[in-house]
Amino acid sequence: MSVLVVGSVALDSVETPYGKVDAALGGSATYFSAAASYFTDVNVVAVVGEDFPDEEIAFLKDRNVNFDGLEVRPGKTFRWGGKYDFDLNQRETLFTHLNVFEDFDPVLPENYKNTPYLFLANIQPDLQLKVLHRMNRLRLVVMDTMNFWIEGTPESLKKVLKLIDVLIVNDSEVRQLAGDSNLFSGAKKIQTMGPKILVIKKGEHGALLIEDGNYFWTPAFPLEILQDPTGAGDTFAGGFVGYLAKVADHSQKSLRKAMIYGSTLASFCVEKFGLDRLKNLSQDEIEDRYQKFIDMTRMK
Amino acid sequence: MSVLVVGSVALDSVETPYGKVDAALGGSATYFSAAASYFTDVNVVAVVGEDFPDEEIAFLKDRNVNFDGLEVRPGKTFRWGGKYDFDLNQRETLFTHLNVFEDFDPVLPENYKNTPYLFLANIQPDLQLKVLHRMNRLRLVVMDTMNFWIEGTPESLKKVLKLIDVLIVNDSEVRQLAGDSNLFSGAKKIQTMGPKILVIKKGEHGALLIEDGNYFWTPAFPLEILQDPTGAGDTFAGGFVGYLAKVADHSQKSLRKAMIYGSTLASFCVEKFGLDRLKNLSQDEIEDRYQKFIDMTRMK
Repeated sequence: MSVLVVGSVALDSVETPYGKVDAALGGSATYFSAAASYFTDVNVVAVVGEDFPDEEIAFLKDRNVNFDGLEVRPGKTFRWGGKYDFDLNQRETLFTHLNVFEDFDPVLPENYKNTPYLFLANIQPDLQLKVLHRMNRLRLVVMDTMNFWIEGTPESLKKVLKLIDVLIVNDSEVRQLAGDSNLFSGAKKIQTMGPKILVIKKGEHGALLIEDGNYFWTPAFPLEILQDPTGAGDTFAGGFVGYLAKVADHSQKSLRKAMIYGSTLASFCVEKFGLDRLKNLSQDEIEDRYQKFIDMTRMK
Repeated sequence: MSVLVVGSVALDSVETPYGKVDAALGGSATYFSAAASYFTDVNVVAVVGEDFPDEEIAFLKDRNVNFDGLEVRPGKTFRWGGKYDFDLNQRETLFTHLNVFEDFDPVLPENYKNTPYLFLANIQPDLQLKVLHRMNRLRLVVMDTMNFWIEGTPESLKKVLKLIDVLIVNDSEVRQLAGDSNLFSGAKKIQTMGPKILVIKKGEHGALLIEDGNYFWTPAFPLEILQDPTGAGDTFAGGFVGYLAKVADHSQKSLRKAMIYGSTLASFCVEKFGLDRLKNLSQDEIEDRYQKFIDMTRMK
């Protein structure tokens, strides 16, 4: 089954100890669809400016990503600049030029409205709600958010939370949203707000799935070279939702596999700058790393 | 087979958001032997002052912990005071009175010298070396250390590292000791210094075993109430080394099981203050939680 993602398509300027890139393709919807496209068809809803270099997304169009919902507006594309410190765990935002993204009002092409899987990337909760209401036959809704919306628009956020199935956030966002310093009692509180399933991203420490009383942990991949963490979270989401859409099953078993596919794609993402590593993965590379993830936690 | 531990027996004053205790039993050798005693016999080498309340360790003597090597010296017992912040991830040391521990010179009773398993808790590296040299028939040497010795006595530390099999440290200590911001290339550098096996403790994020090219991750237990993290690392080491000594096998399979037993015991430790929870565990409780750990990472 196919997936719809609503989020950003951006031009990122990133500096890490391993190098720097200027105005390279980025954005949550881009990373998500690059990862999800290894599993299923993807419909993108986003906005760019007239300056957007269309050839940058040609590799996605060549796979199975549909950009009918990519609106081109007068003005400039969303641009973000950031710099990571020596161990890549801290980053400083150098600039955020929202440009056309500031007035983003998602327009859904008719041929998108029956897409059964929906990923609401980290955007203003009222926009997430709008998209949700415009969809006809949803089977699974997965959403991301961030501290900015938890603090700034809590009421809107709560409305969306009621309507989603899976929330993907990081551990500090769980604590903040729940108002609880304990991650696990915090997760339970969030589950009463709507999402039955929680995926907690822990960066270099892996990720955690919580559904009912079931906990499933995935490690991070032991990468000795890691060039650029930008987009890892959205890439994880792309692998996770992409796999679920492919198998059209949300059993605990499929959710666990989806966690490992998400982690697998994210581990490739950070190996190189921007989307470089996600451009040309082979199914063998993905399956090989998936198996290595399994080997890192199973009893011999 | 039996285990010898050299480390501290102390009186701890601890304050957390869940309460406080004053001059309660603590110390690395104490936590270690409480955990290891669920698996095998333990010989303790440590020093206390004349003020030490001997009845505090009666529960350990009643199990299978031998205190022939606990020297009682004129003066006071090592006392430590600390306070944890709201999420228990940061702690402030309020006081450290080394007292008789300042001149600790480990004395090994004759009946200890053939103990095949040795755990060198976090003490001055020259003392660790002294103990190592006095042992006759070692099968496995496991050691802990900390930033204080990595910075303060690097040459002594390097001498000990050459002679040990397993180093148990936390992730920031790996980076510091290796002088490498990447955990995994850092771990490889440390393996060239001596220890073939590395166990990296990550607190609330679990633990990681590295041997040759094998990586094995264990999660942390999803505790909603966690009263006092003091001693968790030494308790982990007690479960880890205790299990290996019990089975007298260091295959990758046994190492993986030992990681889970270490994590299991540590998860009990932090549930209550000090050694309270480690006093009366049943084998059923341990096996039940061990199984829950397995369930948290296996594919369904």
